[in-house]
Amino acid sequence: MSKKVRFSRRNFFAGVTTAAAASTLAACASEPDGDNPAAPPTEATGLRTATVDFDGPHQAGVATPAQAHLNLVGFNLHDDVDRDGVIRLMRSWSHDARALAVGEAPPGSLEPELVQAPANLTVTCGFGPRVFEIADLEAQRPDWLAPIPEFQRDQLEDAWGQSDVVLQICSDDPLTVSHTTRHMVRTSPRYAAPVWMQQGFLHAAGTREEGQTPRNLFGQKDGTANLTTDEEQLEHVWHGAEAPAWSQGGTAMVVRRVRMNMDTWEMLDRTSREESIGRTLDEGGPLSGGDEFTEPDYSATDEYGLPVIDAASHMARARPPADHPEQTMLRRSYNYDLPPVDGISNSGQVFICFQKNPDRQFTPVQARLDEQDRLNEWITHIGSAVYLLPPGTGAATGEDYWGQSLLERT
Amino acid sequence: MSKKVRFSRRNFFAGVTTAAAASTLAACASEPDGDNPAAPPTEATGLRTATVDFDGPHQAGVATPAQAHLNLVGFNLHDDVDRDGVIRLMRSWSHDARALAVGEAPPGSLEPELVQAPANLTVTCGFGPRVFEIADLEAQRPDWLAPIPEFQRDQLEDAWGQSDVVLQICSDDPLTVSHTTRHMVRTSPRYAAPVWMQQGFLHAAGTREEGQTPRNLFGQKDGTANLTTDEEQLEHVWHGAEAPAWSQGGTAMVVRRVRMNMDTWEMLDRTSREESIGRTLDEGGPLSGGDEFTEPDYSATDEYGLPVIDAASHMARARPPADHPEQTMLRRSYNYDLPPVDGISNSGQVFICFQKNPDRQFTPVQARLDEQDRLNEWITHIGSAVYLLPPGTGAATGEDYWGQSLLERT
Repeated sequence: MSKKVRFSRRNFFAGVTTAAAASTLAACASEPDGDNPAAPPTEATGLRTATVDFDGPHQAGVATPAQAHLNLVGFNLHDDVDRDGVIRLMRSWSHDARALAVGEAPPGSLEPELVQAPANLTVTCGFGPRVFEIADLEAQRPDWLAPIPEFQRDQLEDAWGQSDVVLQICSDDPLTVSHTTRHMVRTSPRYAAPVWMQQGFLHAAGTREEGQTPRNLFGQKDGTANLTTDEEQLEHVWHGAEAPAWSQGGTAMVVRRVRMNMDTWEMLDRTSREESIGRTLDEGGPLSGGDEFTEPDYSATDEYGLPVIDAASHMARARPPADHPEQTMLRRSYNYDLPPVDGISNSGQVFICFQKNPDRQFTPVQARLDEQDRLNEWITHIGSAVYLLPPGTGAATGEDYWGQSLLERT
Repeated sequence: MSKKVRFSRRNFFAGVTTAAAASTLAACASEPDGDNPAAPPTEATGLRTATVDFDGPHQAGVATPAQAHLNLVGFNLHDDVDRDGVIRLMRSWSHDARALAVGEAPPGSLEPELVQAPANLTVTCGFGPRVFEIADLEAQRPDWLAPIPEFQRDQLEDAWGQSDVVLQICSDDPLTVSHTTRHMVRTSPRYAAPVWMQQGFLHAAGTREEGQTPRNLFGQKDGTANLTTDEEQLEHVWHGAEAPAWSQGGTAMVVRRVRMNMDTWEMLDRTSREESIGRTLDEGGPLSGGDEFTEPDYSATDEYGLPVIDAASHMARARPPADHPEQTMLRRSYNYDLPPVDGISNSGQVFICFQKNPDRQFTPVQARLDEQDRLNEWITHIGSAVYLLPPGTGAATGEDYWGQSLLERT
């Protein structure tokens, strides 16, 4: 079953909802089948076989409603790989990802049983700066495809740094994420090897309330003010006429690994937790009142004349200034929660955002947050990387594989 | 919503099925509600709020159908903890786990939003040998509650060894597993601290085909010949009249961390993979024919007179000898898949099994497998621990908290 995925507040889970609604109708319409008394519940079938279109004007996995599980894999290309090697790798990866997205075993796969539950599988590919160097395409490299400037509070670890290529693998089934990762890694040994994997999760499909913004490990709804409409995404996310033709329909991806100190966060009372972010914990509404999607009133004051929303709160610091409405991104982050190290929690967020140009969007926002953000006491950026996502593939773009018209330039 | 969970082949997913069926009925019966056009899909509500009874004759999480996510947490008790300390810890943990199982925030929790989706949450507690020592109850310690003998092929790592206490936390929602773990860890700092966490997953709820045995990372259906009926579990799993009263309704848990070498396994063709286990990869039927639940015919031979099921296959070696039908266990294992280390896959299985007495059940079977098992070329046991699970709580046993009648002996 294929379905259109549109990313908007109302139909955030349109995919699952559509499948479920169809299943309910089917269940209502059909009488029990005497020949098949143990027929699987239609709901299970719906999620198991749900697919997200691989081909399209944009790569899947960006505007796609976030699935429950993530494996973000950074690869480095081997030293002897040249442009032809990158082309062979991209052709092979794209073709395999296209098959896996519909639950088909790619050529050479010996595990057809492990690919049969795509559960909204998406595989999304990005190029780091070195792809342009290796492919002798330095002149094409956009200026923003360079390290994010290191901020004052950053404690970046090499282990989570820039890689040559990234694959973002997401599905509502963790076994599918695991096997897809495995398949992509072993498809590539002549060309590339993984240097890091950032595994993450959200509420499982079917356990979030309809249309609810996912919560992070601090219990905050995370991603409320997101770029949810086609219009917003055209304006702020997808490369358009301002970009070279080979990049149009693509985007820029910034990955930040953000450690969240659960141990100290949990010492805070709820009021302090809410003041640090500027929103309530229960509904996620701004402290100035209203529900999650009410516009915050930064001018509201309390009985003592003090601002209701602290000007140093995360929300206040993150918002785009009136004269810089472009300082916004499509965020698509995941929680990570690993065993403690030396008794200290090892949890946080794989922060992922998409935008036309990180230099104009991510970086100025993060510079403001780095300078002042009440949340900073409990969070630390420990990883940073940036990638160019080439446009989608198939009839909509004429690209047979990721990056074809860039890589086949003469 | 509470539901009875029974563990049998037919109603392996009875819980989810029941909730889904009820939801479908509700969806059929009710007209769209004009006041609430964005009502959540009933299926989602079903999994989100599905619960497994905490109280009962046995602890939940043993015969409970395996949820999608596991965090198995080994704790060590601090040196200054005495029997009273263990009692206080168990009382507090049991009461909190009882609340969390129905989606209620335990006293003192500041994160009510993170407990609202139990999604079949179970928290299960086991005692290592040292609990008996600390509590001055050495005379009560069963003989089998001692290290599993080290086998020839074992490569045990201290990091995955015996702990004083274990909590097995399972849910169909990974965020619920994460928060529940966090809650239990921070409830205990005066008494205990985690020494390891073994995180695992299976196919997500809703992505397995109804009643299907989960697959491991080798693609094998794993857990076919399991103890699925009440009768089998009474005979082989739950402590009965042969055990002291305080232990009746409890069981013994063996945990083995089994590394699976994906890199070398994937070099095998499908025929060799199937011969190593003795079953087909697609349906999981024995190589002698039939479906997954057909009795294997070990006497069957091929056209050359050779056995169809290799006597050294995993299945042939694992089966109980005719004169030792007790050599069987209730298995409840999870996959783990961590980032590769030095380019080598870091994947495998958190093998968990339950039985009356590991010395008579797990150990003789593992001794046979250790001596000869074609799978041994690709698997290595790297962790080992054994625990006593005290019986269930509530009206069925009169126990208010885990281990009460053991710990309150005079």
